[in-house]
Amino acid sequence: MFLARVVGNVVSTRKNEKLTGAKLLVVEPVDFEKLKGQGKQLIAIDSVGAGEDEVVLVVQGSSARLTETTQDSPVDATIIAIVDTVDIADRQTYSKS
Amino acid sequence: MFLARVVGNVVSTRKNEKLTGAKLLVVEPVDFEKLKGQGKQLIAIDSVGAGEDEVVLVVQGSSARLTETTQDSPVDATIIAIVDTVDIADRQTYSKS
Amino acid sequence: MFLARVVGNVVSTRKNEKLTGAKLLVVEPVDFEKLKGQGKQLIAIDSVGAGEDEVVLVVQGSSARLTETTQDSPVDATIIAIVDTVDIADRQTYSKS
Amino acid sequence: MFLARVVGNVVSTRKNEKLTGAKLLVVEPVDFEKLKGQGKQLIAIDSVGAGEDEVVLVVQGSSARLTETTQDSPVDATIIAIVDTVDIADRQTYSKS
Amino acid sequence: MFLARVVGNVVSTRKNEKLTGAKLLVVEPVDFEKLKGQGKQLIAIDSVGAGEDEVVLVVQGSSARLTETTQDSPVDATIIAIVDTVDIADRQTYSKS
Repeated sequence: MFLARVVGNVVSTRKNEKLTGAKLLVVEPVDFEKLKGQGKQLIAIDSVGAGEDEVVLVVQGSSARLTETTQDSPVDATIIAIVDTVDIADRQTYSKS
Repeated sequence: MFLARVVGNVVSTRKNEKLTGAKLLVVEPVDFEKLKGQGKQLIAIDSVGAGEDEVVLVVQGSSARLTETTQDSPVDATIIAIVDTVDIADRQTYSKS
Repeated sequence: MFLARVVGNVVSTRKNEKLTGAKLLVVEPVDFEKLKGQGKQLIAIDSVGAGEDEVVLVVQGSSARLTETTQDSPVDATIIAIVDTVDIADRQTYSKS
Repeated sequence: MFLARVVGNVVSTRKNEKLTGAKLLVVEPVDFEKLKGQGKQLIAIDSVGAGEDEVVLVVQGSSARLTETTQDSPVDATIIAIVDTVDIADRQTYSKS
Repeated sequence: MFLARVVGNVVSTRKNEKLTGAKLLVVEPVDFEKLKGQGKQLIAIDSVGAGEDEVVLVVQGSSARLTETTQDSPVDATIIAIVDTVDIADRQTYSKS
């Protein structure tokens, strides 16, 4: 899983029927020290009620289908957690609150 | 999933039988701000009636087989949505219309 | 799927038994404009009778097992089509004949 | 599988229910000669009782679900071993003790 | 699949039980012309009796589980063949003997 920030969303009316009602969020991978963007943005399905600017965990591959929201859906990236804190080498580098 | 533009197609007469009738489109990954090409072009199966120049969502891996068009087929990339709008940081960066 | 050219082959006598009789071809990914090599060469199983110098489509991941030749085999890349033509932006960039 | 060092952890209260009780560790891929960091840090589920600073093996993809801890969970990276020694070209490059 | 040379091994006593008895080899991807190292080393399970310095084929992803040695194991890379010869453009670039 990688750490990411929700930065936007995509709307589509003509899409696979299993995606009906799904939130298509744009996520930007971030590093664990400064929470700065690194790498390409991608689209992930929200399964935990994540919102813009939140720091989240994204799972990829076939495991992206193992949530109630995404079961049997043609998706390869899903947000599975909203992050409260990140600790690196016993130092807190991020806190949601 | 990643954002891409349909830029071409490939024709093959000698191919796996499950690909009979499938549209083999060439897609170019694009960024979410300027919709400019980034990264290598690849081939994806169309499952939503996408056409040249349209901005689409592409799913990869085993999930690419989870559409009616691609079920049980030896494919690893499928177009699952035609994009209407992209919003990044509350600003619309792309609109189809 | 990606576009590739068959550039060689590998022979192995001590191998997984499911690979008995399989053609282990070396393929080089190529771009869609000039059909020039890009990226690392890899080994793919032939499922369509491809030969040296031919331009082919290669599927990766679990989908590489979804051909009669590769069913249940420990392979992650399979040639699933021999390409006749490539069209990019309404211009033919490759023709087999 | 790749070699990595455990460098931190992530806490999340709002997450997929299958992750309840799981340890979300931040791992940094390291090389096999100097055990220096290389490549991006990511998050892996601990299945062997790994702790901060330990050198571990991480498995990715659908195989990350094949431990008792991670069965049927939406995870794509799992720690499956704590490394005792690494030998490269008959020379020991790492020893835990 | 990619071409690699076996360059070392990893020992672990505290590991997933399905890995008991498995040989954890360090493999270095090599090119097909000079058989020189390219890309990061990784760990693969041996399923064919490969030894140090041998040139082998490595399969990745879920297909890495499709050998008797690795069935249902949490592994994502397996050695499935020991290479005898490599031919590129009708020229032999490697021979084991």
